Amino acid sequence: METANAVAELSYALDTFYFLVMGALVMWMAAGFAMLEAGLVRAKNTTEILTKNIALYAIASIMYMLMGYNIMYPGEAVNSWWPGFGSILGSDDNAVNDVVAGGEDAPYYSVLSDFFFQVVFVATAMSIVSGAVAERMKLWAFLLFAVVMTGFIYPMQGFWKWGGGFLDQAGFLDFAGSGVVHLTGASAALAGVLLLGARKGKYTKDGKINAIPGANLPLATLGTFILWLGWFGFNGGSELKVSNVEEANAVALIFVNTNMAAAAGVVAALITSRLLFGKADLTMALNGALAGLVAITAEPLTPTPLLASTIGVVGGILVVFSIVTLDKLKIDDPVGAISVHGVVGMWGLLAVVLSNPEATVGAQLLGLGVIFAWVFGTALITWFVIKMIMGIRVSEEDEYEGVDIAECGLEAYPEFVGTQGSGK
Amino acid sequence: METANAVAELSYALDTFYFLVMGALVMWMAAGFAMLEAGLVRAKNTTEILTKNIALYAIASIMYMLMGYNIMYPGEAVNSWWPGFGSILGSDDNAVNDVVAGGEDAPYYSVLSDFFFQVVFVATAMSIVSGAVAERMKLWAFLLFAVVMTGFIYPMQGFWKWGGGFLDQAGFLDFAGSGVVHLTGASAALAGVLLLGARKGKYTKDGKINAIPGANLPLATLGTFILWLGWFGFNGGSELKVSNVEEANAVALIFVNTNMAAAAGVVAALITSRLLFGKADLTMALNGALAGLVAITAEPLTPTPLLASTIGVVGGILVVFSIVTLDKLKIDDPVGAISVHGVVGMWGLLAVVLSNPEATVGAQLLGLGVIFAWVFGTALITWFVIKMIMGIRVSEEDEYEGVDIAECGLEAYPEFVGTQGSGK
Amino acid sequence: METANAVAELSYALDTFYFLVMGALVMWMAAGFAMLEAGLVRAKNTTEILTKNIALYAIASIMYMLMGYNIMYPGEAVNSWWPGFGSILGSDDNAVNDVVAGGEDAPYYSVLSDFFFQVVFVATAMSIVSGAVAERMKLWAFLLFAVVMTGFIYPMQGFWKWGGGFLDQAGFLDFAGSGVVHLTGASAALAGVLLLGARKGKYTKDGKINAIPGANLPLATLGTFILWLGWFGFNGGSELKVSNVEEANAVALIFVNTNMAAAAGVVAALITSRLLFGKADLTMALNGALAGLVAITAEPLTPTPLLASTIGVVGGILVVFSIVTLDKLKIDDPVGAISVHGVVGMWGLLAVVLSNPEATVGAQLLGLGVIFAWVFGTALITWFVIKMIMGIRVSEEDEYEGVDIAECGLEAYPEFVGTQGSGK
Repeated sequence: METANAVAELSYALDTFYFLVMGALVMWMAAGFAMLEAGLVRAKNTTEILTKNIALYAIASIMYMLMGYNIMYPGEAVNSWWPGFGSILGSDDNAVNDVVAGGEDAPYYSVLSDFFFQVVFVATAMSIVSGAVAERMKLWAFLLFAVVMTGFIYPMQGFWKWGGGFLDQAGFLDFAGSGVVHLTGASAALAGVLLLGARKGKYTKDGKINAIPGANLPLATLGTFILWLGWFGFNGGSELKVSNVEEANAVALIFVNTNMAAAAGVVAALITSRLLFGKADLTMALNGALAGLVAITAEPLTPTPLLASTIGVVGGILVVFSIVTLDKLKIDDPVGAISVHGVVGMWGLLAVVLSNPEATVGAQLLGLGVIFAWVFGTALITWFVIKMIMGIRVSEEDEYEGVDIAECGLEAYPEFVGTQGSGK
Repeated sequence: METANAVAELSYALDTFYFLVMGALVMWMAAGFAMLEAGLVRAKNTTEILTKNIALYAIASIMYMLMGYNIMYPGEAVNSWWPGFGSILGSDDNAVNDVVAGGEDAPYYSVLSDFFFQVVFVATAMSIVSGAVAERMKLWAFLLFAVVMTGFIYPMQGFWKWGGGFLDQAGFLDFAGSGVVHLTGASAALAGVLLLGARKGKYTKDGKINAIPGANLPLATLGTFILWLGWFGFNGGSELKVSNVEEANAVALIFVNTNMAAAAGVVAALITSRLLFGKADLTMALNGALAGLVAITAEPLTPTPLLASTIGVVGGILVVFSIVTLDKLKIDDPVGAISVHGVVGMWGLLAVVLSNPEATVGAQLLGLGVIFAWVFGTALITWFVIKMIMGIRVSEEDEYEGVDIAECGLEAYPEFVGTQGSGK
Repeated sequence: METANAVAELSYALDTFYFLVMGALVMWMAAGFAMLEAGLVRAKNTTEILTKNIALYAIASIMYMLMGYNIMYPGEAVNSWWPGFGSILGSDDNAVNDVVAGGEDAPYYSVLSDFFFQVVFVATAMSIVSGAVAERMKLWAFLLFAVVMTGFIYPMQGFWKWGGGFLDQAGFLDFAGSGVVHLTGASAALAGVLLLGARKGKYTKDGKINAIPGANLPLATLGTFILWLGWFGFNGGSELKVSNVEEANAVALIFVNTNMAAAAGVVAALITSRLLFGKADLTMALNGALAGLVAITAEPLTPTPLLASTIGVVGGILVVFSIVTLDKLKIDDPVGAISVHGVVGMWGLLAVVLSNPEATVGAQLLGLGVIFAWVFGTALITWFVIKMIMGIRVSEEDEYEGVDIAECGLEAYPEFVGTQGSGK
């Protein structure tokens, strides 16, 4: 009996530890987004994007603790649409007795380890936004949006799926968040981009599209590798349990599928860019990796590694065409976030039906539509209100000079770029 | 019986594995300090600071193996002030029998995993010093100091607290090392800075304080994210055990509190800098994150997440004012290490009394005072002896030209900065 | 009985989780090689080396899934020289029953977690090649070579040792791959370098050797720290099991020895470079760390930490002399990969006899010779065939202008380096 209790406790400890390690990997994705975005903007806008990235992670942590977690996982919800409000985290007080007592509803990991895992997901969704609105959005307007997004917009739709709300009840499947996290981030980004408009000089009156190259591609590559690593936590931790043979095998398969989808995305995007542009475009290879990762996120468990690779290939091709198309539509997204997380996120949601017999195209489309409509709508309203209050776009002069000096008072590379820098 | 033994072994294995993973995260902090410091110095002094960082980690590993670990954890100490000397690590020879035998004193993790976890802490303390003395201290003088610091100065005070010496017996509490690690590093740094003097051009005769901007802020931001990630190991591993419900819950709470304090530190420092300087100063946001982390390190277990956030807020505000104040006192610390790790380290030690009923202000002040006096005193003597032997400051010409060429013979960015570079 | 089964399952889960965490650390080494190599080439060749690094990781993942893993671990081999061909991974279908049934041959971790761990090793071997042939090899020729290397050349010799083939049967010992991974990568690199020739301007007709400094030393340092961290997974995971006292102690000792060898390598290389060149050469310190790591990889378990340090010291000294010697022989290796992984890899294989009583100099030399001959030979043929088909070296003009524009159409640092950049 004592031994059986010790085994139950040990199992709880392993699952909690696994959750924390996976969560730490996801937290690391914040650094990945920061480096990716800092590498893909011009030198004169680098300090500001770095500031946004570290501040949005901080805000996401605080808002999700204060209210987001309780909205998303309300214990007892009012109904399947409306969780009601809760605030401030609970604790693990009675866990030992509950664990030892066992039974269906016994906790098998620490509530706080779950909070930690969830909070880094919110930050991920918010990180997607900062890249798309880069080089022209006011810092404090962005941070104000982050407060609303991480405290309310994200948790509401999170409740609808992962909190057991109506999307979950409708059979919508989204294992680790192609929709709940990535499409959500991209939808909020799209609303912001549409309201902001393109960067000066990106699209000229005669219909020309100017490439605005990023200032530091090693950083962007580092960011992608960080995200790839972090994604093992993102998808691998979403199994929520590792402590028996079946669960351990599941987590292992998720790791393999996640890796294969990303690898296939790289190769597909690289070949596509070679065929379309005649060059092996590194930024497309990086976006291909991310596209593969986003695509497999909705269902990393039921595909074979070969099918996972195929899902990644489609993601990698799709992202290249999407980036080209958005540019033709004059939707200016400096880092390709809307394509990577939005367009490919939708592909990921639909691809669930390829391997999971419980998925239906209808339910997937419902989830996709509801998430997009909710997030795009509420984000648009929020951006609009912020625009009324304080404006969302920097002045033309600040945009020309670079937002770093205007917003942060610091150049990112004061010694490398002269006043005659090509970035202006 | 056999099953009970297997459970005991499995528990030992989990705790050891947890220790190693947490230790690897702390090892990763060495990269964080290297990037943070490399980003905050001028281009011409970057190669040298990188060399110092990788070499100090190596020296810390070697000296702590040769003598530091045995001083700090002497098995049987001579008395509570003086551990006696030991050298070279022991091994895990009889562990299996001891574990299976069980009982109060049975080992529950590998001695070598403990060594690994401890050795990366020493390197952390030493990393703090390199930033404060950057851009003007001789490389080999610094490395010689690292030998004394990691082999003797650090382990002695470590013994007084974590090795069970007189500070521990006096009721001084320092869970993961706001004092033992961070204040220690800062005290040694302060001694070095006072003896070295400020960088040329930092303080002019007419009382002006010149800002000397860092050459690469994305690196500094990356370094901060690395440190934030590594800190989950630093604090989370300091629980020393994860293998039952209570311990797993404790580790989860520590992860959450560590994250919340850092997040709150970012927001507090960002707002403070906005109010004081009118700009969202990225370097202050980064120091705010680190301040939150240092502040919660002395007690990440007993506060609620909300109190942890509050402790981080105070840290984030304090660090901005401390950096401004030290500059007024003409104490030139290029990366703000003395403020982050020293001033906020003291705040962290005092903040223990806010949530831990076993803490007393008296005992915390005693520990704070003893650590500062010991480390500052012995470090000052050591720096002074090294100054007598070989000098500690580079020549004026080398400082003007940059220590990279003089000390390492290599420029960090040979293609980015012309001879007309603004860093000279 | 039920409890005993739960313990068996929990043990399986812990070992699988450990494998996945260690594998994630090794995956992270791909970022390390990318940063190291990007930092050590000139700015004009940076985008291309980044593209090669992310693409080779992707190709390694795909080819090893499609055929490499089945060649290396064929289940039932044709004979000890020839595994036969298999393709596409298996799965974990019957694992629960097998685990609970127990016995000698019961699986104790997920097959897919093993695949994940193995696949990141292949990528490591391939990453070694990209650095040595940098700044002059055609991108697509390199990627074609990667297909052959990761799908066939590497797995064949991997089978001979780790798959139970004739080298294993002959008593050749290589715990984590000083030979199977590092010497393999270096041998393939050497074949490529010999066929490619040196970079223009490296060796002048009057016998002068020109140093061609890397463009970004912080990146190179970051890469080294990443590799150091990843190596804990590389060596620590090669124990393959952690779930009892003996295994946990073994993994802990491996962590400590890996760290000590690297630390000792840094100090040795730094002092050697100081004595030889009069300066503390950072790139030598970095290569010293890697040399220590490569040297201990063949046997990180049987040495004491002090012996591990000594093995690292020899590696650190050796790498400096090897780099100088290869330059005299006009073998142009921009990042020192052949010295670090090849020459020191051989030292690592021989050093096994210092602590492991089962090792013999004869068997170690046999393994060393067979691996070198097989990889060098097949790589030479492969490079030669690729040279016939499409050429392996870029045009003189592209080399002068930088391969970034020619191959990828993107500069890595478009704002930092003018057309008058010193890198041309």
